[in-house]
Amino acid sequence: MAFSPLVDELVDSLRCLPGVGQKTAQRMAFHLLERGRSGGTRLSEALSQAMTGVRRCECCQNFSDTELCGICENPQRRTGTLCVVESPSDLLAIEQAGDYRGGYFVLMGHLSPIDGVGPEQIGIERLLKRIREEGVTELILATNPTVEGEATAHYIADRLDGQGILITRLAHGIPVGGELGYVDGFTLTHAFRGRKPLSD
Amino acid sequence: MAFSPLVDELVDSLRCLPGVGQKTAQRMAFHLLERGRSGGTRLSEALSQAMTGVRRCECCQNFSDTELCGICENPQRRTGTLCVVESPSDLLAIEQAGDYRGGYFVLMGHLSPIDGVGPEQIGIERLLKRIREEGVTELILATNPTVEGEATAHYIADRLDGQGILITRLAHGIPVGGELGYVDGFTLTHAFRGRKPLSD
Repeated sequence: MAFSPLVDELVDSLRCLPGVGQKTAQRMAFHLLERGRSGGTRLSEALSQAMTGVRRCECCQNFSDTELCGICENPQRRTGTLCVVESPSDLLAIEQAGDYRGGYFVLMGHLSPIDGVGPEQIGIERLLKRIREEGVTELILATNPTVEGEATAHYIADRLDGQGILITRLAHGIPVGGELGYVDGFTLTHAFRGRKPLSD
Repeated sequence: MAFSPLVDELVDSLRCLPGVGQKTAQRMAFHLLERGRSGGTRLSEALSQAMTGVRRCECCQNFSDTELCGICENPQRRTGTLCVVESPSDLLAIEQAGDYRGGYFVLMGHLSPIDGVGPEQIGIERLLKRIREEGVTELILATNPTVEGEATAHYIADRLDGQGILITRLAHGIPVGGELGYVDGFTLTHAFRGRKPLSD
């Protein structure tokens, strides 16, 4: 835009957001300039503080403002159960469900040899060390049900083989509120195999 | 998110962007923290500078870093033709087409009595003053082809009635590259009425 280098730079910078192309960036920039200057200023400050202030928790690798995150610092969450997830958004989904009260370990990815992501890159050694030190009794492998997620789960399970730790994987089945007609065959097969007596 | 107030604040702030809800804001925040910290810092600076530095051009009301925008400052664009648009993004689309070389006036909205937007709010008096002072000979009313856009165009045209200024409106017709089968009836009617000899 010939008329304002500042607007140009704002539009270009907004394109670093995922899913935001040139047109969306323009719409965002004009919206902020026309009707949301206070929101824009607040976003600028939040970005600046988060980009410099947010780091990884020393214990679970999740994003944290401090050396240990709130969950790792909470002694009530050291229940001997550890849940391994691929990303902070997975952890967030589990926390929002509100039922699980144990600890976490966030891999920040999954094994992907083709992209050069091995066990060191996602902190599996750190996970194994933590399992030994904390005396974890159950490890819930909540990686995604994708090829890479399954491979990562199996790799971790293999490394802990014969150590007497209960290793579990989340159940597959019909989503609550889902319609049977729209559920895929693999999920239905899992749901049938995992069926439970009604009295449960 | 219990584990990081900084991430919480970033997610909340991102929701000021148009079309961004809770889930998208989370995805954006995690993306920036995981893989785009330099982009996030750049965006923070661009936002801060634009929110304080960008103002309205004194002459055409468009966004500008300076008192007069680049187009209004350029003497070659004082051609006696003025194009009235609703928003900076409309101006940008016309500039990117690259054919029009006259001046602009950006209304920053359209007449909408029900929302309390009258002629003063969108600067129509300032537009009329500029037309008198600059000796404009043609006024192109490029407001959107919506009810409000048409009403705004007709209001401006009425105010200039009998002053000997050529007042035009952009042509309706089939978009270049469009398929006839997908064009609506009103547009086709306009396209038929505005048909031209092939030798043009």
